[in-house]
Amino acid sequence: MRYSEMLLPTTREVPSDAEIASHQLMLRAGMIRKLAGGVYSYLPLGYRTIRKIENIIREEMDRAGAQEIFMPAVQPAELWQESGRWDKYGKELLRFRDRHNRDYCFGPTHEEVVTDIVRNEIQTYRQLPKNLYQIQTKFRDEIRPRFGVMRSREFIMKDAYSFDVDEEAAEKSYNVMFEAYERIFRRCGMIFRAVEADTGAIGGSYSHEFLVTADSGEDAMVYCQSCNYAANLEKAEVAAPEENPIPEQDMLPVEEVHTPDVRTIEEVSAFIGVSPTKIVKTLIFNVDGKTVAVLVRGDEDINETKLKNYLGAGSLEMATDDEIMKVTGSPRGFAGPRGIRCSLIADYSIMNMRNFVVGANREDYHVKNCNLGRDVAIPAYADLRTVRKGDRCPRCRGEISFARGIEVGHVFKLGTKYSTAMNASFLDRDGKEKLMIMGCYGIGVSRIAAAAIEQSHDDDGIVWPMSLAPFQVIITAVNMGDGELSKAAENIYNELITEGVEALFDDRDERAGVKFKDADLLGIPLRITVGAKRLAEGNVEVRFRKTGEVRVIPLSEAAGFIRSTVDEETRKIMA
Amino acid sequence: MRYSEMLLPTTREVPSDAEIASHQLMLRAGMIRKLAGGVYSYLPLGYRTIRKIENIIREEMDRAGAQEIFMPAVQPAELWQESGRWDKYGKELLRFRDRHNRDYCFGPTHEEVVTDIVRNEIQTYRQLPKNLYQIQTKFRDEIRPRFGVMRSREFIMKDAYSFDVDEEAAEKSYNVMFEAYERIFRRCGMIFRAVEADTGAIGGSYSHEFLVTADSGEDAMVYCQSCNYAANLEKAEVAAPEENPIPEQDMLPVEEVHTPDVRTIEEVSAFIGVSPTKIVKTLIFNVDGKTVAVLVRGDEDINETKLKNYLGAGSLEMATDDEIMKVTGSPRGFAGPRGIRCSLIADYSIMNMRNFVVGANREDYHVKNCNLGRDVAIPAYADLRTVRKGDRCPRCRGEISFARGIEVGHVFKLGTKYSTAMNASFLDRDGKEKLMIMGCYGIGVSRIAAAAIEQSHDDDGIVWPMSLAPFQVIITAVNMGDGELSKAAENIYNELITEGVEALFDDRDERAGVKFKDADLLGIPLRITVGAKRLAEGNVEVRFRKTGEVRVIPLSEAAGFIRSTVDEETRKIMA
Repeated sequence: MRYSEMLLPTTREVPSDAEIASHQLMLRAGMIRKLAGGVYSYLPLGYRTIRKIENIIREEMDRAGAQEIFMPAVQPAELWQESGRWDKYGKELLRFRDRHNRDYCFGPTHEEVVTDIVRNEIQTYRQLPKNLYQIQTKFRDEIRPRFGVMRSREFIMKDAYSFDVDEEAAEKSYNVMFEAYERIFRRCGMIFRAVEADTGAIGGSYSHEFLVTADSGEDAMVYCQSCNYAANLEKAEVAAPEENPIPEQDMLPVEEVHTPDVRTIEEVSAFIGVSPTKIVKTLIFNVDGKTVAVLVRGDEDINETKLKNYLGAGSLEMATDDEIMKVTGSPRGFAGPRGIRCSLIADYSIMNMRNFVVGANREDYHVKNCNLGRDVAIPAYADLRTVRKGDRCPRCRGEISFARGIEVGHVFKLGTKYSTAMNASFLDRDGKEKLMIMGCYGIGVSRIAAAAIEQSHDDDGIVWPMSLAPFQVIITAVNMGDGELSKAAENIYNELITEGVEALFDDRDERAGVKFKDADLLGIPLRITVGAKRLAEGNVEVRFRKTGEVRVIPLSEAAGFIRSTVDEETRKIMA
Repeated sequence: MRYSEMLLPTTREVPSDAEIASHQLMLRAGMIRKLAGGVYSYLPLGYRTIRKIENIIREEMDRAGAQEIFMPAVQPAELWQESGRWDKYGKELLRFRDRHNRDYCFGPTHEEVVTDIVRNEIQTYRQLPKNLYQIQTKFRDEIRPRFGVMRSREFIMKDAYSFDVDEEAAEKSYNVMFEAYERIFRRCGMIFRAVEADTGAIGGSYSHEFLVTADSGEDAMVYCQSCNYAANLEKAEVAAPEENPIPEQDMLPVEEVHTPDVRTIEEVSAFIGVSPTKIVKTLIFNVDGKTVAVLVRGDEDINETKLKNYLGAGSLEMATDDEIMKVTGSPRGFAGPRGIRCSLIADYSIMNMRNFVVGANREDYHVKNCNLGRDVAIPAYADLRTVRKGDRCPRCRGEISFARGIEVGHVFKLGTKYSTAMNASFLDRDGKEKLMIMGCYGIGVSRIAAAAIEQSHDDDGIVWPMSLAPFQVIITAVNMGDGELSKAAENIYNELITEGVEALFDDRDERAGVKFKDADLLGIPLRITVGAKRLAEGNVEVRFRKTGEVRVIPLSEAAGFIRSTVDEETRKIMA
């Protein structure tokens, strides 16, 4: 491609509404343009990278035995009503009516449609397993789209859906996809981790997120230094401590303390003069309409996702003042486990506490020297707080680290959530009707482009890995006015095309400085500089964008050198 | 691909709601499934063909210098208001509001979005020409979608848009696209014609449709046997006849005839006893609020598209009884050109008529022996009727033929319709601001698949051209229970994969008859039959789907034979 002919509008200014590097650089390099909030057009340079990502994904999906299909963007409400998500999905589901006043949505995901196809076409176990995927445009009406194509409303996604006869087969399908995802992100040249994750709105039994490590990432993760445990921060487990009961003789006598208008942990700590680690916090929730008290150490917080999952709850809210009064007999701020009139669970963090402070369930009073067993019976301990520094790995007790990342993929073991709701069944070997076991597997195609840039850029611009670069090499003719020089550049360009190298020829009538700046901004891995001095010696310069290394190469060998460098880089990534 | 693993649900029954062959066969061959009215999912087999079509289009677009971009499906109302189409487009434009209550539509086409991109990024003549294309999902809320993906609401389209500095350059861009389209449809193995067409709702200066000839086609066309003239029936020109004025002495005296309640041409013809070819019909229209009388020979009809284009009219309707009374002084049925109080134009068909009958502009009266010049002055003759059998070619006076076809592509010279409305301007060589000259170019990707089937099928199923076939060869193992036989089939399959041939291996435990029927239905160009008798001789059979020809080939040469046959077929299509 000739730069002079390409729609490739670069800018020097950093766009004021772009907060993170990838958003800024994709705008500055002329890869994308905003059409509306969270809705972007891909210009030629940007779409070249998108197509490369798509091709990597397609190759790996095909290799993993998934079959490509293409489902509509416009989906009828009936299917979503059948799955129960028409009511549950909320405002992110873009709904509309057609000219005949029928309800539809712009598909944010395709569980319903694919399940409908499969239940219609598959009757027996002999037709299973199946894994169907597509690369397709989705819309989620995010309330606050931001960061360019990182969190846009319209986006390109690869989604795959597996259907299996039983749990064992479904697990195999899950693992095959898991491995395909690892290959895909590796081929995209990214540093990533697969972490255990919550199943959220999609539902299902378990799931993993693939996070590309980047400080700007919206997701936090935890991983073990010793074993391969890694999880989304929200999901990461806290290991159950060993129970170490306090001997009776060490229990001090319970003492009620007058604590007028002293309510928060900070206030209690200051007033009584004990560290928050010596206080047990009693949080009262309304869980699906029932009141539940949850105990946690004073310096910790409850992770509501964990609590919700532990209780298998549909809805979870902090209790109202009235509800608190009902179960504690006192206003907010003085709740405690002793004599509370609702069910009780405790986080592991309180398991080995002794002589601690709790609320007295009496206005303006707390209790000192409370002890488990003697004063409070705990029906169940559970992992209900978020992991923090100093915690050990729940698998191997090794040291854990924290990092931030960008979610580029997510695999879910769905189980029978959709096959139950939509009756996707088959006849097994014995002629008995069974529900298919499903999995679903998503990759944010457009987001990979942004994540790759977050992970690999410098002050001058993008630094593409070879596999995602819109062009593999850029030929910079230092002075197009110099006939000999421009002819030499043109020749190299033609040789590269013949060699099958993806080359961009900067044939513009611009100063060399402008061209170098643009080449760096675009992030093309290799740059051939054709300048008068080197040319007189029969040479050109090849510069590596990533390292800044410059090599002088004989003119006649330039195309071959580029070809073999491209091949080598590609091999390195694949290895 | 192994047939046993593929989601490839074929059916024997002809689906009752599918009227035309392509719709029936795409359903029966498991290529598509309906999700909602005019909304289809592509199953793996169908999507393979779609991808082949896309790749052919992409290669030819790139070769023609167009640059691939990707624009959103969701488009903000503001741009459509700017172009004026938000109000004009009607109910085919699917409109909706997002969660913030802003107006959007699901793009049925992308003139507005691409013009917005280009006006923002292009400032000077040095950045032109540009041709931007995309392959993308569109939605048009057709009132009566039908024929499967032939006329669906959601569909895949390639749309390209060219921007040029002047008319000459724009014409060049148009021609480059025209030639690319010819290559595309040729490579798709289709018999087609490029015909002159009306610009319709898209607007602009001129256009061509690419019609694939098929009796089931919704479009009618006319083409010359002698020269290369071809046009959409609606648009096809009637050559202006030579004027051959009637000598005064041959004009008979005008005679008013009492014709009580005799109104239609048939009634007048019967009552007076003259052929309709001796009667001039006077049709009265309301054109943008003005009344216009149009004359045409009694046996002809007015082509309203031609009339509208000739008058440059926005709206055109038959006049009301009141309007007719106002300009003729009589009720409907007795209008004539003599003394009519509105503007008058005449179709060529009356140019050389003599002593004809017309309405008298008086209730229950007609006039005999009316003559042009003496009794009626015609301010303008024009081509206002549709071509019919017996007409000659407007270019060379050669014989013309009629045919039906399916529109698979459409190229438009838009001129400045959108650049004016949206102010897409640039600075020319002299620093003067000028409007860009635009062209737009569409191909119905999903429709090509259907059109190819309409053009090439038989009673047994689809007959794919090699270039669009989802697989190039199918290997039918006659009896998978026979170990030696299934092993031989498996070997050939693996050899074909190694050779890079797209092979489907029918490894199902089905009777040979079922497999043969499915192979014919799917329309795969080549079938290798591995049967016991031939195998004992060291041979297999290769059957050509199109001709039914069967050749016996040594087992060891089968893969090589297929490889070279595929190459040869591909070459033939390209030539």
